[in-house]
Amino acid sequence: MSSCNPAVRDLIKRKRDGEEHSDGEIRRLVTAIASKEAQPAQIGAWLMAAYIRGLSEEETISLTREMMNSGDVLPKWPSDWTVVDKHSTGGVGDKVSLVLAPALAACGVKMPKISGKGLEHTGGTLDKLEAIPGFCVDMENGRVREVLESVGCCIVGHTQQLVPADKVMYAIRDVTATVDCPGLITGSIISKKAAERVGTLVLDIKTGNAAFMNTREKAHTLAQIMVDVGCELGIHTGAVVSTMDCPLGRAVGNALEVAEAVRSLQNNGPSDLVDLVVEIGGLILFLSEKAASKEEGRHKMRGALKDGTALAKFRDMAVAQNVADDVATRLCDASNDPLEVMQSKANKTELTCPQSGFVASIEAMKCGLAAHALGGGRDKEGEAIDHAVGLQLAVTIGDKVKQGQPWVTVYHSQPELPDAIRTQLQEALTIDSSQPTVASRIVETITRSKHSGAPKKQKKN
Amino acid sequence: MSSCNPAVRDLIKRKRDGEEHSDGEIRRLVTAIASKEAQPAQIGAWLMAAYIRGLSEEETISLTREMMNSGDVLPKWPSDWTVVDKHSTGGVGDKVSLVLAPALAACGVKMPKISGKGLEHTGGTLDKLEAIPGFCVDMENGRVREVLESVGCCIVGHTQQLVPADKVMYAIRDVTATVDCPGLITGSIISKKAAERVGTLVLDIKTGNAAFMNTREKAHTLAQIMVDVGCELGIHTGAVVSTMDCPLGRAVGNALEVAEAVRSLQNNGPSDLVDLVVEIGGLILFLSEKAASKEEGRHKMRGALKDGTALAKFRDMAVAQNVADDVATRLCDASNDPLEVMQSKANKTELTCPQSGFVASIEAMKCGLAAHALGGGRDKEGEAIDHAVGLQLAVTIGDKVKQGQPWVTVYHSQPELPDAIRTQLQEALTIDSSQPTVASRIVETITRSKHSGAPKKQKKN
Repeated sequence: MSSCNPAVRDLIKRKRDGEEHSDGEIRRLVTAIASKEAQPAQIGAWLMAAYIRGLSEEETISLTREMMNSGDVLPKWPSDWTVVDKHSTGGVGDKVSLVLAPALAACGVKMPKISGKGLEHTGGTLDKLEAIPGFCVDMENGRVREVLESVGCCIVGHTQQLVPADKVMYAIRDVTATVDCPGLITGSIISKKAAERVGTLVLDIKTGNAAFMNTREKAHTLAQIMVDVGCELGIHTGAVVSTMDCPLGRAVGNALEVAEAVRSLQNNGPSDLVDLVVEIGGLILFLSEKAASKEEGRHKMRGALKDGTALAKFRDMAVAQNVADDVATRLCDASNDPLEVMQSKANKTELTCPQSGFVASIEAMKCGLAAHALGGGRDKEGEAIDHAVGLQLAVTIGDKVKQGQPWVTVYHSQPELPDAIRTQLQEALTIDSSQPTVASRIVETITRSKHSGAPKKQKKN
Repeated sequence: MSSCNPAVRDLIKRKRDGEEHSDGEIRRLVTAIASKEAQPAQIGAWLMAAYIRGLSEEETISLTREMMNSGDVLPKWPSDWTVVDKHSTGGVGDKVSLVLAPALAACGVKMPKISGKGLEHTGGTLDKLEAIPGFCVDMENGRVREVLESVGCCIVGHTQQLVPADKVMYAIRDVTATVDCPGLITGSIISKKAAERVGTLVLDIKTGNAAFMNTREKAHTLAQIMVDVGCELGIHTGAVVSTMDCPLGRAVGNALEVAEAVRSLQNNGPSDLVDLVVEIGGLILFLSEKAASKEEGRHKMRGALKDGTALAKFRDMAVAQNVADDVATRLCDASNDPLEVMQSKANKTELTCPQSGFVASIEAMKCGLAAHALGGGRDKEGEAIDHAVGLQLAVTIGDKVKQGQPWVTVYHSQPELPDAIRTQLQEALTIDSSQPTVASRIVETITRSKHSGAPKKQKKN
């Protein structure tokens, strides 16, 4: 035994042995992580102990609060604003934010969506928007306020050093197989939303083959702890558990997804995407008291998508984020092909159904990895990506198909579609002889759990 | 998820989920650790997963073998030598090696004891020997062979880069609270002994308040896995489980322990120390076929201590390790005080019994920490230590004492014994009104477990 970092070692030992940390212990731990006093090896060991032994709700609340306090916190928003946000645990073809933010702005709330760039199979919201010529995702906080004041929404990258402890922890979770731990996910996500002073937050927790939380039970558990911790930190928090077995909507790839988002705002989107946007938006409006019920919230959302007000907000947001006025106007004009307006050019190859029957599954993970392999994603921070490549599905689950009928159009930069990607995509498709039951993507909607009247366990501090 | 070290992350994930590693997986892991391809955070996370989930016997055998192969292995010893060694998991006042090595040399086997320097409360064998003026623990391998040829034993520090993977792993175990894990301890200890090409090895596994393995069950488990793994790697391996609740013998501190070792070699040692030396040495002689039974082995050991041949070997070893001939001779002469020969000077303070009764316990951990606080140990590698300080117990467990009677002499460098140390020491002593039962230090002796005739589980490689 040496004498370096004995305090951190003792904390590791406690979690190793399945003990519950006090608030003071969590504070010392997060401080040591943010200050780099804790060695990476110690952080890796603590994360693994927390992963295996678990973190209680009390520990997760402390962790989230201390992570939030590890760096800057944004200045308060104007008191008459209702500032809302949404976070998804990541899905293939997930362009919900692109439709949700302008629709919510049309419903009178403010949504400053602060996103990261994507890695691996799920893609990033910012990457998608950058398929629009001129779209700028870098914005100073002062300008964010101006755009929220005038438009009501914006979708931008991180500019400030919020939650430095998360930056350290996330990099280590990534390489130590400790990403998919409810307490750690909660700390990471909710601490950032709290530091951004979000008033209402709805989490879209994905479950299924292509999700971290591959079972509904795991997704439910994560959703409930995130909702409870968010509420404890003063955020009106709810969650929607939704399936991620096949891609959301029919487009996977940056420009293709923007085009699908625009069509959705033109009241012409795929029903699974629109339903999810309406569910999440309706819950946000209800939790922020802009609707008397979830039903009324959903009704308002559908109205904003139908009457063109959400589309107008999208256009204004694009202009506010540096897109030329005429480009934004043409992009939103339903008589134009959004891909043409975006000058998105790629070679196209149609893949066909190998047999007749009913589409039983289109594996999201294989589709996401194929889009990534086409050049639409990145492996490392800073890598360039190709906005034009991706997949446009021609069919969806339950469709009756004939052998030889196209089921997907692949957009690629290579003269010929590489065989490996072709093979991977064909493996994504399963055709059955009998028609499958098509279930809703929305598994459940979660709000704060009713705490019993029993006093909370006394904890040492 | 980033793409760095996916192979290592996948190995971490398997152990995180309680899976058993194949031989090939262990090989990849140890290679990645030794080559620094695995990041410290990843090593910390894997060690914690291994600590909590455990390592099977098969995994421990693989780990030990791969660690041994991660660096140099000593050249073979002459085929007519019986090369033996002993390893202790660490105890307060443990000067067994100082008596054991010369006694075994007197019994005709070769003992090249390769030790590390001590940290924290247990002290190191090399530090003790350096209390003898001139004693040099740095020796090239060629010289080690000469000394083994001529004397039969030496006690030296590491000179070669044996088991580099252990160096990396140990530094990380130390700061991540993953030291006391049977599989990891076994890998660390047995890999080094195998790389040193030891033919027979006996482990002294301490149990009790001041031991890593604080229960007898834990000590037994560790002893058995170490013995089985040692045998699998071709070493005749046995173990003795011995208690470490109170200091071994009556001296704690470098020069004081050398003096007690010398008195033991003069057939005048404390019985608990001598009994343990005889038990370990007897088992070594039996396992290396220098005695027909453990009883005969113990008999030979007692003989070597009684007839002066062990003392003569100690003298020769000291001379071979750079001690002046006359110093070594005077040190071994029973008419001299060894402390005077070592020119060991300190102030002395006697502490007295606060009440009358029977000595029920003298806590080893408190004694070790007190000796450390007096300046007899180090917190960091390379720190200087004071060889003269320490404790000389005047009483032992079960002794009848009177209030005011001295129970320990403290050797200190300060003009006055600091109050904090005085208090800590007085807390180490417990006096009861009734006489306690005094149990033997030796709990059990362990040799290879009988494997059943069932074939070993098939493992993927």
